[in-house]
Amino acid sequence: MSLAHGRPYLAIPGPSVIPDAVLQAMHRPAPNIYEGALPEMVDTMIPDLRYVAQTSGHVGIYICNGHGMWEAALSNVVAEGEKVLVPATGRFGLGWADTAQAMGIEVELLEHDRQSAIDPERVHAALAADKAHRIKAVLAVHVDTSTSVRSDMTALRAVLDDLGHPALLMADCIASLACDEFRMDDWGVDVMISASQKGLMVPPGLGFVFFNDKAAEVRRAMPRVTRYWDWTQRANPEMFYQYFNGTAPTHHLYGLRVSLDMIKAEGMEAIWARHAALAGAIWVACDVWGSAGPLTLNIKDPGLRSHAVTALRLGAPHGKRLREWTAEQTGVTLGLGIGMSEPDDPNGTGFFRLGHMGHVSAHMILGLLGVLETGFAALDIPHAKGGVTAAAQVLAQASARG
Amino acid sequence: MSLAHGRPYLAIPGPSVIPDAVLQAMHRPAPNIYEGALPEMVDTMIPDLRYVAQTSGHVGIYICNGHGMWEAALSNVVAEGEKVLVPATGRFGLGWADTAQAMGIEVELLEHDRQSAIDPERVHAALAADKAHRIKAVLAVHVDTSTSVRSDMTALRAVLDDLGHPALLMADCIASLACDEFRMDDWGVDVMISASQKGLMVPPGLGFVFFNDKAAEVRRAMPRVTRYWDWTQRANPEMFYQYFNGTAPTHHLYGLRVSLDMIKAEGMEAIWARHAALAGAIWVACDVWGSAGPLTLNIKDPGLRSHAVTALRLGAPHGKRLREWTAEQTGVTLGLGIGMSEPDDPNGTGFFRLGHMGHVSAHMILGLLGVLETGFAALDIPHAKGGVTAAAQVLAQASARG
Amino acid sequence: MSLAHGRPYLAIPGPSVIPDAVLQAMHRPAPNIYEGALPEMVDTMIPDLRYVAQTSGHVGIYICNGHGMWEAALSNVVAEGEKVLVPATGRFGLGWADTAQAMGIEVELLEHDRQSAIDPERVHAALAADKAHRIKAVLAVHVDTSTSVRSDMTALRAVLDDLGHPALLMADCIASLACDEFRMDDWGVDVMISASQKGLMVPPGLGFVFFNDKAAEVRRAMPRVTRYWDWTQRANPEMFYQYFNGTAPTHHLYGLRVSLDMIKAEGMEAIWARHAALAGAIWVACDVWGSAGPLTLNIKDPGLRSHAVTALRLGAPHGKRLREWTAEQTGVTLGLGIGMSEPDDPNGTGFFRLGHMGHVSAHMILGLLGVLETGFAALDIPHAKGGVTAAAQVLAQASARG
Amino acid sequence: MSLAHGRPYLAIPGPSVIPDAVLQAMHRPAPNIYEGALPEMVDTMIPDLRYVAQTSGHVGIYICNGHGMWEAALSNVVAEGEKVLVPATGRFGLGWADTAQAMGIEVELLEHDRQSAIDPERVHAALAADKAHRIKAVLAVHVDTSTSVRSDMTALRAVLDDLGHPALLMADCIASLACDEFRMDDWGVDVMISASQKGLMVPPGLGFVFFNDKAAEVRRAMPRVTRYWDWTQRANPEMFYQYFNGTAPTHHLYGLRVSLDMIKAEGMEAIWARHAALAGAIWVACDVWGSAGPLTLNIKDPGLRSHAVTALRLGAPHGKRLREWTAEQTGVTLGLGIGMSEPDDPNGTGFFRLGHMGHVSAHMILGLLGVLETGFAALDIPHAKGGVTAAAQVLAQASARG
Repeated sequence: MSLAHGRPYLAIPGPSVIPDAVLQAMHRPAPNIYEGALPEMVDTMIPDLRYVAQTSGHVGIYICNGHGMWEAALSNVVAEGEKVLVPATGRFGLGWADTAQAMGIEVELLEHDRQSAIDPERVHAALAADKAHRIKAVLAVHVDTSTSVRSDMTALRAVLDDLGHPALLMADCIASLACDEFRMDDWGVDVMISASQKGLMVPPGLGFVFFNDKAAEVRRAMPRVTRYWDWTQRANPEMFYQYFNGTAPTHHLYGLRVSLDMIKAEGMEAIWARHAALAGAIWVACDVWGSAGPLTLNIKDPGLRSHAVTALRLGAPHGKRLREWTAEQTGVTLGLGIGMSEPDDPNGTGFFRLGHMGHVSAHMILGLLGVLETGFAALDIPHAKGGVTAAAQVLAQASARG
Repeated sequence: MSLAHGRPYLAIPGPSVIPDAVLQAMHRPAPNIYEGALPEMVDTMIPDLRYVAQTSGHVGIYICNGHGMWEAALSNVVAEGEKVLVPATGRFGLGWADTAQAMGIEVELLEHDRQSAIDPERVHAALAADKAHRIKAVLAVHVDTSTSVRSDMTALRAVLDDLGHPALLMADCIASLACDEFRMDDWGVDVMISASQKGLMVPPGLGFVFFNDKAAEVRRAMPRVTRYWDWTQRANPEMFYQYFNGTAPTHHLYGLRVSLDMIKAEGMEAIWARHAALAGAIWVACDVWGSAGPLTLNIKDPGLRSHAVTALRLGAPHGKRLREWTAEQTGVTLGLGIGMSEPDDPNGTGFFRLGHMGHVSAHMILGLLGVLETGFAALDIPHAKGGVTAAAQVLAQASARG
Repeated sequence: MSLAHGRPYLAIPGPSVIPDAVLQAMHRPAPNIYEGALPEMVDTMIPDLRYVAQTSGHVGIYICNGHGMWEAALSNVVAEGEKVLVPATGRFGLGWADTAQAMGIEVELLEHDRQSAIDPERVHAALAADKAHRIKAVLAVHVDTSTSVRSDMTALRAVLDDLGHPALLMADCIASLACDEFRMDDWGVDVMISASQKGLMVPPGLGFVFFNDKAAEVRRAMPRVTRYWDWTQRANPEMFYQYFNGTAPTHHLYGLRVSLDMIKAEGMEAIWARHAALAGAIWVACDVWGSAGPLTLNIKDPGLRSHAVTALRLGAPHGKRLREWTAEQTGVTLGLGIGMSEPDDPNGTGFFRLGHMGHVSAHMILGLLGVLETGFAALDIPHAKGGVTAAAQVLAQASARG
Repeated sequence: MSLAHGRPYLAIPGPSVIPDAVLQAMHRPAPNIYEGALPEMVDTMIPDLRYVAQTSGHVGIYICNGHGMWEAALSNVVAEGEKVLVPATGRFGLGWADTAQAMGIEVELLEHDRQSAIDPERVHAALAADKAHRIKAVLAVHVDTSTSVRSDMTALRAVLDDLGHPALLMADCIASLACDEFRMDDWGVDVMISASQKGLMVPPGLGFVFFNDKAAEVRRAMPRVTRYWDWTQRANPEMFYQYFNGTAPTHHLYGLRVSLDMIKAEGMEAIWARHAALAGAIWVACDVWGSAGPLTLNIKDPGLRSHAVTALRLGAPHGKRLREWTAEQTGVTLGLGIGMSEPDDPNGTGFFRLGHMGHVSAHMILGLLGVLETGFAALDIPHAKGGVTAAAQVLAQASARG
C-alpha cells in the first residue's frame, strides 16, 4: 500500500508547479511567426514583465535557461579582460562567477559561508580597495536556492552610492522574482535576470533580462557583443523575429501570457504577502519539530530567509530517507540539498530543500507540512509533534490580516 | 491577500480529482468508431472492469450519469407494476426509489434516519412479510454520499438467503466502487451499478452495470426493455456500436483506459487500504477538533463510515462560513451538506462533506486537514488543536503497516 | 513509404473533426458541480442552443448519444400503445422506428428506397387514412447519414396542416444540425433532437432535444415519463443538477461552450453557406470522376443531398480497396457504407461515405478530393481526371459570391 | 461566408505542424529534474538523434533557436580573429556569416544569387587560395529556406579532400533535417546544427549540434569557450544538468521523445521518400499552373530543390493577395517570401513560400494545392488548370512505387 496515488506535489525549488491554465494555453497548434496574433501578443507582455520586476526599464526575452542568462547579461556589459566582484552565498553565486571566468572576465570572489547573506561590509571593503574602478559590476544572487538565503539589494546599492563607485549592480532573481519582494527601480538594481520556471510558473526554457538606461549605456560602449546574447534588438525590436534573434519560442509565450494574466490579477503585493505567509508557516513548523530533534533551518535569521525556498538539515541518513519516503508514500517530491556537505556527510544527503514558489496555496503547503510530520513519525526521526498545528495558527493569523 | 493561488483541490464527494494522465489521454482527435484501435481498446476494458467490481459476471457500459444507471438497471429486471424494496439511508436511496416509482414500479420504502446504515432486521421483516414474493429486488445504496454511511451488503445477502427469498440484491456503488472494499461475487450481489466520476477518476458521463447470470435470467423474462437501457447487447455485442447502443463515448473511453491501467497497477487491495488509511486520518483529526467544539462526524460508528466521503456537522452558520473561507483563502472546495437539516437550520448550511475518493494522496488529505484546522482558527470556531498532528500519527502507522 | 504521416483527417460522417480549441477547453480539472462558474456557464448555453436550432422554444440537454435521444424524445410525447408514423429513408429512420417499437409504441412504417427523400404524398396518404388521429407523431430524419438524403421538413408540415392532423412533427437533426439549413420555428417542427458529435463539433456524449409549447402540452398529458428521459425539469430547472437529472457532464460542457462561441462568431447563415459550398465542390468532383467510371452519387437530385455527408457507390471491391488505401497511404479515413448492399455485394463493401460536417475547411475538403483522385489513379479505378480542378472552380465561385 | 472554418494548415517553412501526440506529451506537470524518469528519458534520446543525423558522432542539445545554434557551433571551433568561408545562397547563409562576424571572426563571403546552390568551384577557388590554411571552417547551409535551394554537401567534402584543406565542413540542416536526405558520416560533414521546429516537429526552443571526433579535437584546442555554448559537457555529461548547462527544457523533451518515436517508427528512408514524393507533387502542379501564367518556381533545377520548402514567384501584387486570400478563405497560411525582391517589388510581396516539412501527408499537400488552384481562379490570376490533377498522378505513382 502507498498513500502516494494522487496529484503529485513537486516541492523542489524549481521547476515549480505549473498552473493547469498555463499548460492548457500551451496545448495548441503552431502559429504563424511572421504576422498576426502572436506578434501582437508578445507586445502586450513587455509592460507586464516590467510590472513583475517593478521597473520602467528595458526588457529582453531569451530562449535559454537561467545559466544562459548569466552569460547573456554579462555579455552585454562586461568584456573579456574586464573585472567583476562576486559576493557568493552559495552554489549559484559561484556558478555565475564561473560563467564569468569562462568568458575571460576577471573575477574577484567574496565567498561567504553557506548560512549567510551577502555581507555589505565585505563588498564595501572590496569596492573601496578598487581605486581604479576596474570592477565593472557586482554580481549578486538575490536568493541562492542552494542555501535559501536572501541578500539585501538595497544594502549593496547603498555601498555603491556611498563610495560613488560606478560598477553596475546586477541581480540574479531567478529564484525570487514573483515570490520575494523585489523592486528593481526603487532598489537601484541596474541589471536583473530571471527565468520562466519558478515564480513565473512556466516550464523551463525562457530567460529574462531587465536593465536600466545606465546599463544600456554600458552596453553601447562595449567593443562587441555576440548576436544571440545582444540585448539591443531584443529590447527594442523593429521586426518581430528580433525579439528572440530568430524563431520565437511560440508555446512558452502562450504559457507566459496566461501566467502574467494570473500575476496581474493577484497583484505583486498580494503575491509577496502570500509567499511570506506560507514561508512563515513552514518556518514555525520546522522550529517546533526541531525543538526536540535534529531538524534545523539552514538560515538562522528569519529576515534573511527566502520566501520561495527553504534549505534544511536533518543529518545523514535521515535526509535521504525522508526524501525517499515522501516520494514513495505520499506523492511529494522534496528537493535535494545541493552544494552542502558535512565532514561525515560529504555528499550532503542529510540536507534537503522545500520549494514553495509560484503556484502554491495554503492547501499545498499544509499538505507538505503534514507529510513531513508523518514522515518523521513513520521513520522514527526525533521531533516534537505539532508543527502543522503551529503552522495552521500562523496562516490563520496571516489570513485574518490579509 | 489570498492563500488560494495554487492547484485547487476539489474536496467534494464527486466528481473527484481527475488524474493528469486521464485528462491527457482524453486530449486527442476524434477516432474512427467503426473499426481499428478504438474497438480493440474497449474489448480490453471489460476484464478490467470485472476486476474492479471483483466479479466474473457481465458488464454493460452506458453513456449517462449515476441517476441514469438507476433507471438502466431497473429497466432490465423490474417491469411496470412490479415491486421493489428500498431500505434508504439518505438522499440517494430515496432518489433510487423515486426513479423506480416514476417507472411505474411499486416501492416499499424503509426509510432510515440520516445517521444509520441499512438495518438488516428491518429488511428481514419486510421480506419475511412478502410471502408471495412480490418484491422483485432490494435496492441498496452501498455508500450514501449524503450521510457518508456504508451499509453491509453481506448482511442483506444473508437475509435473502436465510429467507430463501428470490429477490435480486441490487447495489448502488456509485460512490464506493474503487474506494471502499466491494466484492460482488463473494458478497452475493446480483446487480451493481456505478459511474465514472468518483473512484474511477474519469469525468462524469459514463455509467456501468454489472450483473450475474441470475439477473440475466430475470432480464430474459422481462416483457420489454427499451433499446437504450437494455443491457443484453451492451454486455455481449456482436458489433462495436452495440456496446453503447449507437455512437461510442470516444473520449471518455480513452480516459477510462488510463484510469483502469492506474487501478490495475496499484491493485484493488492497495486502493482499499489507501482509502481506509486516509479516511482514518480524517476521522481522528475530526475527533480531536470536536473534543472541544461543535464539530461532529455524522456517522458515529467507524465501522459504518464510508472510506470515500465524510459527512460532518459544524452547525449554522459555521458550516457555510468554513466552506466559503476555504474556497477563498486556501484553494479547497468543500462539499455542501445535502439532504440534511436541523430545526434551526432548515437548509442544512451547518453541514458539509469531505470527498476523499479516487485520486487522493496523503499530501492532499493532510493539506485538507491543515486547511480545516487553519479555518477553525481563522474563523474562531471552537475546537481542540492538534487534529493534523493526530492524523499524521495515524498515517505514519498505516504507512508502516502497509 | 507511406504518405499518411501528418495530421489525420477523419472523413467519416461523425464523430466529426473536433476543433483544437474545444479539446483544449475540455482539458481542465474537475469543477464544483453545485455552485460557481459551471452552473453559470450552462445558463449561457441555452439561448445559444436555441440560436443554433433557430427556435424560441425549449431546450433539454442529455448525457447520452443520438440513439438515446430517439428514446428521450419519444418518452415525453408518445406512451406505450400509442402510434407513430415513420417515413424511413435509411438506416437511421429504421432505427428510430425500432426504438419506438421496443418502447411498446405502435409503428406505421413507410419504408423508402435508399435513394429517395421522404415522399410527402405517401405521408399524406397515411395521415389521411388515420381518421381517428391515432398517429401521435411523425418521426422524420432530416438527413439520414446512411444514404445522405435530406428530406423536406416544410413539406411534411404542409401535409399535417393541410389535413389538420394534430400529430407532432418530430425531426432527427443529428447529422444535419449546424450543417444543413434548419429553421425549427419557421418550418413548424414541434420536436427536434440532435447530438454533440457532428455539426456541434464536441465529442460524442451529449444529446439535445428542442420542443415547442405544443409538444410541452403533449408531455403534460402523458401518464408517466421516466425520470432520466423527462424533459420537464431539464428544460426548466430550479436547481443546477436538474439540467442533467443528476451529475453534470462537466467536461463536455466546457467543450460545448467553446463550440457555441465558434458557431456564433461564424453565424448560422455563413455555416450553412460553407457547408453548401463544400458539398457542391464534392459533388462536381464526383460527377467528373464518374463520367468515365463506376463512381456514382447515391442521391441523384442535388436538391435532396445532404450538405454534411455524401454517400457514394464505387462497386465491390473498389470501395473497400479505396478506403484501405486512403487510410494507409494518405491519412484520410473514409466512412463505411452502412445499410447499403447489392446482390453481388451483400455487405455493401462497394459503398462508402464522406463526412464533411462541422469543422471543415476548403483545405480539408480539397485535400480529401485530391486524395480520392490519387487513389483512383493508384488503384487503377476507372475515372475521368480533373475532379479536383472542377471542385476548385466551384469553390472559387462560391468564395467570390460569399 | 468563409471556407476557412476547420483545422488550420500552417504551410510556412517552420515552425511546422506539430503532431497531436507531441502536444499531448507536453501537457503534463513539471517533473523532478534531479533524478528519476526525466534523466533516464533523455539518455534514450541520444542514439535516436544520432540515427536522425545518420552519424555515430557526438550530440549536444541546447535551449535556444536556430540562430543560437549558429553561435553555439562556431563558439566551439572558431576563435575570435580566426577565419571562416561562407558560400551563402540566401538569407540564412548571410545570417550565419553575420553571426560569425559579430563574434569577431573573419568571414570570407561567397555570395550566390538567389536561384543557385553553392557552387563547389567557387569554394574550391577560395580554399585553394588559402595556402596558409587560415580558413578554419566552411559554413554551408544545406537548405536555405529563403530560396528553397539545397546544396550538395558531398561536393564540398570532395573539394576539401581534393585540396587536402583541413577546414571543418559545417552544415546548417535546420530546415532539412528529417526532411531531405542527409547522411552526416557518409557525407563527411564535421559539424551539423539543427533545431526542433521543422523536421523534428516540436515547438521552437531546442537546438542540436552533431560533431565528429575531428571537430572535438578542434574544440579541445580552443583557448576558451563560454559555458553556455561549450558542447563538451553537453555531449558527455557526468550529471544530468550538464546536458543543458543548467535546468533542463522539461516539456520540450517530452515532446521530442514522442517525435523521435514517430521518426523511428516511420524510418529515415521512408521519411525522405515521403518528402520527395510530396515535393514532386507540388512541383508538377506549379509547372502546370505556370505554363499559362506568372507562377514560377524559384529554383529551376529540380535536383537542387529542397524537399521541405518551395519558394515561388507570382509577382506583385498577386503574391500578397493570394496569401491573404488563402488565410481568410481556406484556413491555409502560406509563407512570406523573405530575402527576395525585384526592382518593382522592393519588399518582395510577389514571392511566397510553401512549407512541406515534417508532419505532412498527401491529404495536407493535396489540400494545399487545391487551395492554390482555387485561389488562382478566385483572384483571376492567370494559370493553366489541372495542377492538382497532375499532382495526384505523381503521388499515385510514388505510392505505387513506395
